[in-house]
Amino acid sequence: MAEAGLAAAIDRVGNVYGRTPGNRRTVLIGSHTDSVPNGGWLDGALGVMYGLEIARAMIEAGHAGGVDVISFQDEEGTFLPCLGSKSYCGVLSNDDLARAAGPDERRLSDVLAAAGFSAEASRFEPDRQVAYLEAHIEQGPKLEAAGARIGIVTGIVGIRRFRVRASGQADHAGTTPMRLRKDAGAALIRLAARILESMPAMSAGETVWNIGAMEFKPGAANVVPAEASFILEIRDLDEKVLDRLQTRVEAMVAEAAAGAPVAVAHESIGRIEAVAMDRALADIVRKVAARHVGEPMIMPSGAGHDAMVVARTMPSAMLFIPSIGGRSHNIVEDTREDDIVLGCRVLADAVNEVLSRAGSTDRPGR
Amino acid sequence: MAEAGLAAAIDRVGNVYGRTPGNRRTVLIGSHTDSVPNGGWLDGALGVMYGLEIARAMIEAGHAGGVDVISFQDEEGTFLPCLGSKSYCGVLSNDDLARAAGPDERRLSDVLAAAGFSAEASRFEPDRQVAYLEAHIEQGPKLEAAGARIGIVTGIVGIRRFRVRASGQADHAGTTPMRLRKDAGAALIRLAARILESMPAMSAGETVWNIGAMEFKPGAANVVPAEASFILEIRDLDEKVLDRLQTRVEAMVAEAAAGAPVAVAHESIGRIEAVAMDRALADIVRKVAARHVGEPMIMPSGAGHDAMVVARTMPSAMLFIPSIGGRSHNIVEDTREDDIVLGCRVLADAVNEVLSRAGSTDRPGR
Repeated sequence: MAEAGLAAAIDRVGNVYGRTPGNRRTVLIGSHTDSVPNGGWLDGALGVMYGLEIARAMIEAGHAGGVDVISFQDEEGTFLPCLGSKSYCGVLSNDDLARAAGPDERRLSDVLAAAGFSAEASRFEPDRQVAYLEAHIEQGPKLEAAGARIGIVTGIVGIRRFRVRASGQADHAGTTPMRLRKDAGAALIRLAARILESMPAMSAGETVWNIGAMEFKPGAANVVPAEASFILEIRDLDEKVLDRLQTRVEAMVAEAAAGAPVAVAHESIGRIEAVAMDRALADIVRKVAARHVGEPMIMPSGAGHDAMVVARTMPSAMLFIPSIGGRSHNIVEDTREDDIVLGCRVLADAVNEVLSRAGSTDRPGR
Repeated sequence: MAEAGLAAAIDRVGNVYGRTPGNRRTVLIGSHTDSVPNGGWLDGALGVMYGLEIARAMIEAGHAGGVDVISFQDEEGTFLPCLGSKSYCGVLSNDDLARAAGPDERRLSDVLAAAGFSAEASRFEPDRQVAYLEAHIEQGPKLEAAGARIGIVTGIVGIRRFRVRASGQADHAGTTPMRLRKDAGAALIRLAARILESMPAMSAGETVWNIGAMEFKPGAANVVPAEASFILEIRDLDEKVLDRLQTRVEAMVAEAAAGAPVAVAHESIGRIEAVAMDRALADIVRKVAARHVGEPMIMPSGAGHDAMVVARTMPSAMLFIPSIGGRSHNIVEDTREDDIVLGCRVLADAVNEVLSRAGSTDRPGR
């Protein structure tokens, strides 16, 4: 960042921030560079490199600025999901920071202190940044399946996550007659099947759901399960759809509890509100993309991104490029080179358009 | 055993054998004294103590014998299920012995050598033992539920155990549209629900089944399950019923595989043939029991016992006494004291009746 001519700093939570010199209106371009274990090379890093490349090219072309670049810390949530963007937007409390701990129980505050990150937090400046643009790989197969090269994100889906548990009694599976069993496993198999069966009719067109984990205890072939649990996750862009689905799932859990000789209950173990991207900003990105490759795909983001935090603070938009085979969070994650180049060109054009409309006194050329 | 007047020895696999002096025809009474982790005080030990008490009482009353007593080693299968009874009946190969290992990978042969068990194997003597009688706690709730105090076992159920697996693809549960998923978990939830739904109509009156374990991998809320598996166990006294159920389950697995975008397959991971008890011998036990408490309950054993090994070698019968709350393999395992005493009296009477019919020259009085 320093080499590109940006004033670079690492702040107290580890955000890497490249601020363009001067006091012009700017577009903030960023994403994250942290990854998941055994993750790929594009998830996050792509959006930061786009920002750096656009800032570098603009400065090299003699336009002293217009773009600030940021790599937000810990988007993936090893310690605290979207740590960096929350800090940048001023929605991270000292309590959140003090409580956050990693998978090995290391406290975030200790890790940050050990890393020597003591500089003041980088913060959003309302009189400076007019918009946030984040480019990211899709991490799914929709663009590839449709033969589209650019996706314009309408919003980031909300997530409702529930753990459903049944408690019965561990009995010998050879000696206990069927009618005398309190089989937690059978109750949850039936409930899970019913939910899966009902979901297509209950959901909206883009709703997705997943039962990603299921576990029986004690888990022996010859013991009637005493405890069983599964995790159900539902995602949709529309909070009303999520409300409706939650109500119906809760009713099915209650019916299962009423009809079974076991206790069945659910608890919410995660809830993230859906966030809409800025319509006008997304429309700018759509129009400049259309100049390159015809109409891009208009789509929700099924995964979370820093943009869902930043969108509450300033106008934000996201651009997706295709993931080969839809694969991500895996070493095989990749994108065709010409798609990577195209995404950067579209983003650069979008920056120019935004700065032009914002009336930047030093409008960079295309 | 030595104090009671029996010639006691521990053989090479750890069977504790009390042979009554002389060359009369005898009834072998036994069970096992090993237990499961955190098991109770009656599972197995009860049947050995009955044998010892009946032998002691007969010798004390001046009848020099008629009963040999055995505590079979490792019925529960820490190293090899029914190790002791298999050795006693001559159906344990040297290969079986050499291969057997415990949960911590200790080899059975090393453990036996370390314990100093080097005496010759105790073996069934066809000219001596006329019958095997094993008393055991029911380990289930049927006797208690029916208010019965004695159960006469018709046979020991056969067991078919299958692992059913599905293989799909791990995808991001937020970004992958429902129609593009290869969800191993959903496929197995549907199949398991279908099997549970179909079983009551497909099975016979005393059939029992259990899905005791179910597991998804990678098992994360936000990842579509790539692998899923469950274990299905079916038990019945009638091998024809088991054959029929296996055929139908296999058909359901094949249908699930045909209809799903994932691979679904099953493998047999355990098969134990059903074993009938000797009808004439069981009828003797039934008749003497009826003299004490009216008609006993006639029932299959849903759990395995040494009698299922011994029954292939000599006429064998089993007697059950109630388990409080049906509980076993647990520290709470218990039986009412008067039921314990009654069981021993019935068994003693049965021994007298069997020896009487066998024409023992030194018939013990009642």
